[in-house]
Amino acid sequence: MNRLLVLEMVRQHRPVSRAEVSKLTGMSATAIGRIVGDLIDGGLVRETDQYSTGVGRRATMLDIDVHSIMSAGIEIDRNRLKIGLVDLDGRIAAQRELELGRSNSRPEAIVETIASAVRKLADEHGIDASKLIGVGVGMPGVMNPEEGTAVFSAQLGWSNVSFAPALREKIGLPVVLDNDLKVKALGESGTASISGDSKTALISIGSGVGSAIVIDGKIFRGANNIAGEIGHSTIDPNGKLCECGKRGCLQTYITDLALLQEAGQIKPVGSVEELYRLMQGGETWAFNIIDRACTYIAITINNVVCTYNPDTIVMAGSFIDIDPDILERVKGKLKEFIWEPFVGTFKLTRSQLGEQAIMIGAAKLALQRYLGNGLQQQ
Amino acid sequence: MNRLLVLEMVRQHRPVSRAEVSKLTGMSATAIGRIVGDLIDGGLVRETDQYSTGVGRRATMLDIDVHSIMSAGIEIDRNRLKIGLVDLDGRIAAQRELELGRSNSRPEAIVETIASAVRKLADEHGIDASKLIGVGVGMPGVMNPEEGTAVFSAQLGWSNVSFAPALREKIGLPVVLDNDLKVKALGESGTASISGDSKTALISIGSGVGSAIVIDGKIFRGANNIAGEIGHSTIDPNGKLCECGKRGCLQTYITDLALLQEAGQIKPVGSVEELYRLMQGGETWAFNIIDRACTYIAITINNVVCTYNPDTIVMAGSFIDIDPDILERVKGKLKEFIWEPFVGTFKLTRSQLGEQAIMIGAAKLALQRYLGNGLQQQ
Repeated sequence: MNRLLVLEMVRQHRPVSRAEVSKLTGMSATAIGRIVGDLIDGGLVRETDQYSTGVGRRATMLDIDVHSIMSAGIEIDRNRLKIGLVDLDGRIAAQRELELGRSNSRPEAIVETIASAVRKLADEHGIDASKLIGVGVGMPGVMNPEEGTAVFSAQLGWSNVSFAPALREKIGLPVVLDNDLKVKALGESGTASISGDSKTALISIGSGVGSAIVIDGKIFRGANNIAGEIGHSTIDPNGKLCECGKRGCLQTYITDLALLQEAGQIKPVGSVEELYRLMQGGETWAFNIIDRACTYIAITINNVVCTYNPDTIVMAGSFIDIDPDILERVKGKLKEFIWEPFVGTFKLTRSQLGEQAIMIGAAKLALQRYLGNGLQQQ
Repeated sequence: MNRLLVLEMVRQHRPVSRAEVSKLTGMSATAIGRIVGDLIDGGLVRETDQYSTGVGRRATMLDIDVHSIMSAGIEIDRNRLKIGLVDLDGRIAAQRELELGRSNSRPEAIVETIASAVRKLADEHGIDASKLIGVGVGMPGVMNPEEGTAVFSAQLGWSNVSFAPALREKIGLPVVLDNDLKVKALGESGTASISGDSKTALISIGSGVGSAIVIDGKIFRGANNIAGEIGHSTIDPNGKLCECGKRGCLQTYITDLALLQEAGQIKPVGSVEELYRLMQGGETWAFNIIDRACTYIAITINNVVCTYNPDTIVMAGSFIDIDPDILERVKGKLKEFIWEPFVGTFKLTRSQLGEQAIMIGAAKLALQRYLGNGLQQQ
């Protein structure tokens, strides 16, 4: 993690001297010297011909070499596969999206597709394949990142698939597999900075409801990597039956499906966008549905704040993405639900990376592994 | 944290060889050699005259010197002050309890009382005061452990009291101040072991409702040390008004006061114990109140499990302590509320340390600080 922190500080403050990095990270000059040495040896950081203008003796400045290494970030979802090659700046240098259907969505087929697409993508964009240091994969469900196993994914119909080892075998690179929301939160989170630490919670509302939290650049996993599954927290023991078999789960109040089912009592509505347009057109019943959803989103934010005490909350998912106005409505309601000691303790934003967040976060996780392994492809 | 882990392994497995400690912690022989050296220099660990019987060359065994150092653990509550001197085994070697009333509950008075009581307690029990390495204090409310400030405590009527610096000044020892539930969870939590890691969540139900989580021996704080304040998570936007001014907070369902208020609609009941006895005596209305409380406690457990994914949940507080039967009732209901992927992921127990938990946890926090500062009283 220290390597990551140093790399991040050089990235954010470049050009920057070793002394400044030491100050920014709170680490000793000796430690910074050693870590910067490793990063220079690995080609990630280089010395520039500039010098710092501060007091004391002139110090050589450091910069990062943004394209020295790259990692691949993969998003696997029910019906699509997204592949991105991501540089040290967290930018996607090359990207491809593929449809998944019956014929190509088995794990073996996806392994084949990813392995050939990554190489092809690098070729097409003139990226030296030897620069690739690893692959990160994010997908919905319960993932075991230590073993690289997809323990259970309802969306893909997978259970106990040893995915990362299979892809590693085929592609010849280290592969890390994790839950999609967890890598998304990692992508969206800033890393630790001079003031310490960022505690970023991501809340996603769309086909399901989930959250993930990243503490100082590290995904909070709990005992089995399923921390943050708030969709099945219970709101009302007498509430509506959830698809999980329990009553009154948070999911039953705010997923797209729940809203459309309610709307169906008045008339068939095909999407939450359509429902939103109906509300804008003056339909009171559509307003009532959207309004209650915003109330429960505000409650969800309060409950996430009470449990995790984050400094940043990133809202994502199809419902939030309909219109910026949704988050404004939620903010309006929040005043009613946030407990006083938490007022002003966090900032609430929409996703910054949008459709690219999972790819970028998965690639960042692969980079973390690489740095954690001493810049070796273990 | 590594020093703490090594000390903990020696404590749990004594007598134990350096090689075994290296295996237990997953740390290198070099690192273990260095850390054990520090601990021996500090007098916490000593070499015994036993030798390991394993294969390879004979290895000197290590033991801890349980009484080489001690820390003081203090619990401050609305109407009492508890002071314990705690050894390296986490056992209380000497203890005193004092009543707090109008005359002696101001911060300055409490500082005086603690400083003199700690010295006196050591004297009376023949404990060399120079063995004391620090003081840990746990009290209810929002605490800032970095600055040692009691930011806000409704129970004590304090706000922005710079308590730890004042006590440090008076007692001449490092002082760490933290929220009572957080140190309680630290006291109850095991520390990381061979399989890695324990993720212990404490849920307390009594005059209030709160939780705290300790990850691998480290308190999870969030951005402002108020993570875990689930008492004010919202259950029902149309629910009963809470003392905080919001509607339908979890607190309004399961605090002692909430239960007694409900009971009061039938007849005046003085305590939750009395309510419980009425239920045992066959009063259906008392059963209904207790039963609904158990339902909401089961929901609370599910919601804590969904968010933190702990491997251990410790239940504490006056309501849980009425009778072991309460937790059995809660367990019975839990089947209805735990989401399937979480079944079997955690064990649920009652507090092991009971009335001593805050003292022991606060003393443990002081010990963590001491070890973190390189065995210096910084």
